[in-house]
Amino acid sequence: MKTEPQDHLRMTQKRKAGFEKKKAAATKEKGLLIVHTGTGKGKSSAAFGMGLRTVGHGMRLGVVQFIKGALYTAERDILDSFDNCDFHTMGEGYTWNTQNREADIATARQGWAQACAMLDSGEYDMLILDELNVILKYQYLPLEEVLHQFATRPANLHVVVTGRHAPEALIEAADLVTEMRLVKHPYREQGIKAQAGVEF
Amino acid sequence: MKTEPQDHLRMTQKRKAGFEKKKAAATKEKGLLIVHTGTGKGKSSAAFGMGLRTVGHGMRLGVVQFIKGALYTAERDILDSFDNCDFHTMGEGYTWNTQNREADIATARQGWAQACAMLDSGEYDMLILDELNVILKYQYLPLEEVLHQFATRPANLHVVVTGRHAPEALIEAADLVTEMRLVKHPYREQGIKAQAGVEF
Repeated sequence: MKTEPQDHLRMTQKRKAGFEKKKAAATKEKGLLIVHTGTGKGKSSAAFGMGLRTVGHGMRLGVVQFIKGALYTAERDILDSFDNCDFHTMGEGYTWNTQNREADIATARQGWAQACAMLDSGEYDMLILDELNVILKYQYLPLEEVLHQFATRPANLHVVVTGRHAPEALIEAADLVTEMRLVKHPYREQGIKAQAGVEF
Repeated sequence: MKTEPQDHLRMTQKRKAGFEKKKAAATKEKGLLIVHTGTGKGKSSAAFGMGLRTVGHGMRLGVVQFIKGALYTAERDILDSFDNCDFHTMGEGYTWNTQNREADIATARQGWAQACAMLDSGEYDMLILDELNVILKYQYLPLEEVLHQFATRPANLHVVVTGRHAPEALIEAADLVTEMRLVKHPYREQGIKAQAGVEF
């Protein structure tokens, strides 16, 4: 898109006007229900990026990781070092490591009890429920119970739910939904292994 | 997907076997060229989430923000507080605030000179070039020059490029590409304003 200076000026003025108009119409504040789903990368990273912002603003962040407990994550060490972040990790890694549906359900219940306590406490500005979508996909928790809990949470609490396969009803209930779509992945195409910083 | 315990066991065993096979075939380590694009949210947040991991591992992170200079970002304050992170912000906010193509090009050049110095230095494990896609879309920098610089960077340096409208040739050159697809956005649909933690 090559443009002359005067076209550029007209174009950017128009774009700025549109942006300002949209911004002026957006006046409400409320806690958002945010969902990151899809088979691409970045669902958890984007949630933790928002968590980092929240902590940086001096607001209070809570995290419940539902199934990545066995995996070392460097972001946990950093976020957890802040007084205004509470980080809880449940489960024993990916579900296929346990090979036991009953044990997986019990672990999911434990994580959800922790999440409910944090949802109800009124102490948080943002709560990240990492990989909860996967828990819901496998029906380890009743979807209706989860949606009811979200609907009755404190009005200004942002909740971020990550994981593949977000249920349709959760997407319906959400305010902000992003699908991370896989375009290219080096695991599959080039035989490259998981590397620090990128994958864990 | 309701399953009986024995089906669950068979299913998870099969899935685990496939995962292990794929992991065993992935043995190479190399610096990845990573692109986050699309009109959805989370492109920069996911990059900063990876940056947080990198810093948490004690690896060295560099960041050049090409067009968000005027916007306060809490993640900058936190990342910048670590000795193993160098954070540079260029530009004067969104391009439509300056209304001047020549000034925008000069600012892009300044950011790119900074990025090149960091790419060539050999001192970094990961470099985040935030919103560079937008700079390329507006042709503020020659794409060929950028691709050549990426192709000749140190072999183990991960580069993460964010922004809408990633050029096709950059996607071709990349190892890992995720498109953040907008499914629902509260600005547009509910008149909700930008909020701390979520948007900035």
